[in-house]
Amino acid sequence: MRAEGFPKIFASPVRWLRPAPGKPLVVVSSRVRLARNLNGLPFPNRATLAQRREVWNRICAALGRPSAGSGAFACMEMTEFSDLEKQLLVERRLSSRELVRMGAGSGIAVDASERVSVMVNEEDHLRIQALVPGAGLNEAWRLADGLDSALGRRRTFAYDPQLGYLTACPSNVGTGMRASVMLHTPALAMSAQVEPVMRGANELGFTVRGMLGEGSGAVGNFFQISNQSTLGEDERVILRRLRAAVLRISHAEEAAREALADGRRLWLCDQVGQAYGRLRHAYLLPSQEALNAVSFLLLGCEMGLLPRVRRTPLLRFMVTVQAGHLQRRAGSVLDEAGRDAYRAALARAFLTGAEEKEGV
Amino acid sequence: MRAEGFPKIFASPVRWLRPAPGKPLVVVSSRVRLARNLNGLPFPNRATLAQRREVWNRICAALGRPSAGSGAFACMEMTEFSDLEKQLLVERRLSSRELVRMGAGSGIAVDASERVSVMVNEEDHLRIQALVPGAGLNEAWRLADGLDSALGRRRTFAYDPQLGYLTACPSNVGTGMRASVMLHTPALAMSAQVEPVMRGANELGFTVRGMLGEGSGAVGNFFQISNQSTLGEDERVILRRLRAAVLRISHAEEAAREALADGRRLWLCDQVGQAYGRLRHAYLLPSQEALNAVSFLLLGCEMGLLPRVRRTPLLRFMVTVQAGHLQRRAGSVLDEAGRDAYRAALARAFLTGAEEKEGV
Repeated sequence: MRAEGFPKIFASPVRWLRPAPGKPLVVVSSRVRLARNLNGLPFPNRATLAQRREVWNRICAALGRPSAGSGAFACMEMTEFSDLEKQLLVERRLSSRELVRMGAGSGIAVDASERVSVMVNEEDHLRIQALVPGAGLNEAWRLADGLDSALGRRRTFAYDPQLGYLTACPSNVGTGMRASVMLHTPALAMSAQVEPVMRGANELGFTVRGMLGEGSGAVGNFFQISNQSTLGEDERVILRRLRAAVLRISHAEEAAREALADGRRLWLCDQVGQAYGRLRHAYLLPSQEALNAVSFLLLGCEMGLLPRVRRTPLLRFMVTVQAGHLQRRAGSVLDEAGRDAYRAALARAFLTGAEEKEGV
Repeated sequence: MRAEGFPKIFASPVRWLRPAPGKPLVVVSSRVRLARNLNGLPFPNRATLAQRREVWNRICAALGRPSAGSGAFACMEMTEFSDLEKQLLVERRLSSRELVRMGAGSGIAVDASERVSVMVNEEDHLRIQALVPGAGLNEAWRLADGLDSALGRRRTFAYDPQLGYLTACPSNVGTGMRASVMLHTPALAMSAQVEPVMRGANELGFTVRGMLGEGSGAVGNFFQISNQSTLGEDERVILRRLRAAVLRISHAEEAAREALADGRRLWLCDQVGQAYGRLRHAYLLPSQEALNAVSFLLLGCEMGLLPRVRRTPLLRFMVTVQAGHLQRRAGSVLDEAGRDAYRAALARAFLTGAEEKEGV
């Protein structure tokens, strides 16, 4: 059965890039993920196909009824998605790279708001995720916790009174919670401060990774920072510590921006101008160059250097030019050169549109 | 006595960048230089100040009367030029870098057309130069030879029936002629063919150097090719051989342009677009980056990829943004950062003007 929800989801702008007025611009989005497993069934890596299917069916049935804080869920098995759609799921951050490699019995459920989703039979039976725009760890926690409680009333999760929630990988045992925040820190990068700041976060017990999670490099000055430990600390304590770390990095980035504006204003304008010129006049634009240029434009726009470019369309443009979304928009499979050419055409059109709108 | 000619010269666009319709675009300009010395007076490096002054006075007197093919000459000693003006002389290619370092008794004479000039008491008593736009070795030869004959009728040059004209450095003995052509070969550079092509010219007895002559690197894909030997060959033979070498390089560049247009069109557009974007949105523009970008714009414009940019204004812009001309235009001495900022402002204005003119 092909769920109606997904084509609609793929066609709409990603929700986690909506503006979050009044919040620090350094924080792009916030996410809370809870690892859960059904009691009495083996973890996915030890389960038979029949057992995996049973898990999938049980979770879908439980999600079928509207739960606290979220509407109806669209559920779809991985086998039903095309390769392109799988790529879209990853780019929209609804699915991990691992989940899309799995087959029957693994799948994904997304609620109508697209803020809450469940990866089924990835590493664990359930990975409950809440992803919200801007600095919204509290809201993400509320959403994930709400769905967790609702599901917990309908299904029994593997739980040990001593250890907490049991998970396939020992690193998730306990709360099963991974809270992460995506940060955009171009001024720290321009001032060669990324390494020390991120090392500081690491020493405080946080993991720092690139934009698309595990195994992705740090392109476009986007980073994800998340808690390493899930054991021995209450969820709220973990979230409070993470918020504090994020706040420190935000302040460092803001100070770096002020220092650039004060001491190296022309250089800053030149860097932003180079990025603008790159996108505005490109004919072949590799993904990484596009992301790096978007990062500088975002900085320029947040610092008031690019009055014609607006932040939210720019962030959406960034999602649009990733390989999956690009090909969806083109309506055909494109090889790397084809994607680079189409991405360049979109970049030119995006900035020409911005110029024309303001009557340049 | 401060000649009236020079301020006027400095304020006008350089003549050797005028369009040369119908000639190969690869050739930017052509120059013929003749080394001569007055009979009976020591070479400049062995002359006393009084002797150098005598040479200067004798040459100025001979140039005072209009000569065949050229009008009146403006003569000025090096001591009368400011540092900025000396820089202008070099950037306009009226003076060598060596001449501007010299003092009393050394100077320069330029005719009203600015096509013919004489460096006095550089390495030799006279360096007669003719510099014309495009592929014009014949015309340059005609102009230099005309002035040489006219001066030869009024002064006796050091000449040996066996060796030919005697010069301070043995490498110029014989004809005393150095003919050189400035080439712009961006497509060869993009196709990694510059080295082999230039090595080929070298093996045929030609010297290949950067844009501003000896000691200048190959910025902006501009090269000068000139004859190595001045001895044992008639001037016309040297010129014929040089023309043939230039033609070969021109054809190689044209073939490389066609190959790019056929096989790598988008890549080519992207390179040109990057250069355009760099100049159009720059806030700090080092000289070398500007020249490299101008080179790509020139290519784009010659290949019809940039309908809004015209070739001659672009070539003039290239002269305008060199340090001396830049500071003359700014009306003040600028440090490196100041020059980079002002150069960027000129680049933005230049291309904004091009866009506005065409109603983009």
